Amino acid sequence: MRQSATQLPLASRATGLVGSVIDSSTSLLARQEHDVVSFAMGSPAAEAVPTDVLGEINAAVLARHDAYLYAATEGDPALRSAVLAMLDGTGEATTEERLTITSGGMQGIDLACKLFVDPGDLVVVESPTYTNGSATVMSYGGEVLEAPMDDDGLVVELLPDLVARAGRTPTAIYTIPNFQNPSGTTLSLRRREALLEIAREWGAMIIDDDPYGLLRFAGDEVAGLRELSDGDPLVFSVRTFSKLLAPGLRVGWVDAAPELGQLLINAKQAMDTCTNLPAQRLVAAFLDGGHLADHLARLRPEYRARKEAMQDALAEHLGDVATWTDPDGGFFLWVTLPDDVDTQQLFPAALAEGVAYIPGSSFSPGGRFPNTLRLCFASTTPARTDVGIRRLRRAIDAARG
Amino acid sequence: MRQSATQLPLASRATGLVGSVIDSSTSLLARQEHDVVSFAMGSPAAEAVPTDVLGEINAAVLARHDAYLYAATEGDPALRSAVLAMLDGTGEATTEERLTITSGGMQGIDLACKLFVDPGDLVVVESPTYTNGSATVMSYGGEVLEAPMDDDGLVVELLPDLVARAGRTPTAIYTIPNFQNPSGTTLSLRRREALLEIAREWGAMIIDDDPYGLLRFAGDEVAGLRELSDGDPLVFSVRTFSKLLAPGLRVGWVDAAPELGQLLINAKQAMDTCTNLPAQRLVAAFLDGGHLADHLARLRPEYRARKEAMQDALAEHLGDVATWTDPDGGFFLWVTLPDDVDTQQLFPAALAEGVAYIPGSSFSPGGRFPNTLRLCFASTTPARTDVGIRRLRRAIDAARG
Repeated sequence: MRQSATQLPLASRATGLVGSVIDSSTSLLARQEHDVVSFAMGSPAAEAVPTDVLGEINAAVLARHDAYLYAATEGDPALRSAVLAMLDGTGEATTEERLTITSGGMQGIDLACKLFVDPGDLVVVESPTYTNGSATVMSYGGEVLEAPMDDDGLVVELLPDLVARAGRTPTAIYTIPNFQNPSGTTLSLRRREALLEIAREWGAMIIDDDPYGLLRFAGDEVAGLRELSDGDPLVFSVRTFSKLLAPGLRVGWVDAAPELGQLLINAKQAMDTCTNLPAQRLVAAFLDGGHLADHLARLRPEYRARKEAMQDALAEHLGDVATWTDPDGGFFLWVTLPDDVDTQQLFPAALAEGVAYIPGSSFSPGGRFPNTLRLCFASTTPARTDVGIRRLRRAIDAARG
Repeated sequence: MRQSATQLPLASRATGLVGSVIDSSTSLLARQEHDVVSFAMGSPAAEAVPTDVLGEINAAVLARHDAYLYAATEGDPALRSAVLAMLDGTGEATTEERLTITSGGMQGIDLACKLFVDPGDLVVVESPTYTNGSATVMSYGGEVLEAPMDDDGLVVELLPDLVARAGRTPTAIYTIPNFQNPSGTTLSLRRREALLEIAREWGAMIIDDDPYGLLRFAGDEVAGLRELSDGDPLVFSVRTFSKLLAPGLRVGWVDAAPELGQLLINAKQAMDTCTNLPAQRLVAAFLDGGHLADHLARLRPEYRARKEAMQDALAEHLGDVATWTDPDGGFFLWVTLPDDVDTQQLFPAALAEGVAYIPGSSFSPGGRFPNTLRLCFASTTPARTDVGIRRLRRAIDAARG
């Protein structure tokens, strides 16, 4: 006799997780045949991973017996030192006692929510926002408040009114300040300062999620929330090597107030004990070997070229029906189609045509933006991108009759 | 102006995490100098890791560009197939749709708690229990109910009374049926059947955590809860390669009702997106290469010899003041000292003598068992074990004046 999941003693939040995540697309796409042009996953290009260098390093790293044992929960000393050295002299410079190594940026968000989000707590998120960011808030019973964005990122000046209408101050504000996922926009300096001010007024944590900051290929750098806050304990900074180096390694870090250090260790032990040690040693050796600067110097123009190729393809094939963003870095374009196109409904037809994307409504807990979609330009070559955008046009035309 | 953590908007559960985990010891010990004999971490011996085989496999696995990208959330197809093949024909045989690859067994527990534990829910745990198991329950706001154990494991027949006194039925029962951590005891067949019966009566999930089952070195196998339950959706089985192969890889799996599959994907995406892909490929190739059987055949007599060496050392140096368990597998001895010894207080003195362990009270959310301690016999050679137990004796003698 088969029971359904709802006959099991599910936590109230568990059912809230259903459909809140882009699982069906990502899991589907992980198994896709080669002919589908996938703009869906926010992943570096396979050819952008420095496999040769990593392979050489690995041979040395993995010959050591102790590379396979438990790591310290806060991170392997070798990687902790390498990250501190990497950040030294930059706006992100930090100290030993503020640093926790994580299993990718995703675990940084999980840690923030575990420490700060009680059931019923209000958490401000950008609208649209990173799906797994808002899903994690909800996985701790938090309630998300979607706040509008414009070309300068989160419209901070609207927050007081929004929060007043919600009837309670938020416990946290989740933001991706640089080349936001999915919109590609960057939070302006003025708004960053305003955000810090309002967070202090409310006593709310800022979950400062910045996976793409080092992947700027145009425009001027904007000082980060971490730097502007001058170590304010309300700023909880989540960083990752997933986009800089390789997502499959699942290595990132959190830069947070020293007084949170022990709580972070406790919380991480209740998640995965420690982060994969061979991967930590690998990233440490990659950094210590001085490979990151060269690697980023190669990636930036390549990603700019890929973005421009995608914009060119959009102009050629969708110029009459769509608009799109123009990010200064990162991985994503945000495309707006005519009001009569529902990109969630369009998805199966697009996949049948041989192209994949993430529907815009996936980035809004309230299902906003039905006529938008997110395209990752980073993982496909210009030629493949052109093929994919042509296919997208065919799917749209078919859908509109 | 420095804020303290408690001035930050901490979730109610976060403060509950303080001190609930053995962080101070493990993190401390991960940094210990070589001369401390550590019986603390539940880790395989460094020399038990087949580094040569893993190194060879790694060279092939990591040459592939796609080994560094995102994996499917439910696990890389290569590892999923290898795990199914490994379990085929055993009492643990399972199917594709019941399987989720996890970042170690710890994430399996985290997934179970995320899906089943609402704030205020009652969860039965063994007393003593695995610290990070109960800590994870509490990290979702669950309340743990400590249930007594004897030489046959959890005393299932006492549960109805305990639960009646608690005034509500539990949402889950967390058990480590084989060579329990920390006590070393194995749940008898009769009690396993009784546990399944009572879980069905209550509609409670059984979190069946079995990291050590394949490391039996004496006595007869007892049919597992997974096997006895015949696929009952109330049994959520957590497994890991940490003790079988290498903990630093952070690779495990969950065997659960197919109707939970999508929820597990959603929940895992809100934790770490996917498990480290090189590690998944490495374990898959290790299994496909037929190395596990040989490896376990080497480990079992070695661990038996280490257990016996530790028992011999205890008899020689602590025979007049202590008693200890006699497990048929796994990693741990549970040692009981005279009532006047508080092993938490003893710890700094022991460390100063050059020996480390985990105080027994760490394994009880209520701080029971103050005069006990857990010793891991797996990670030290017989000669080092003898040195360590001598040092422990000196620390005890000094403490007792």
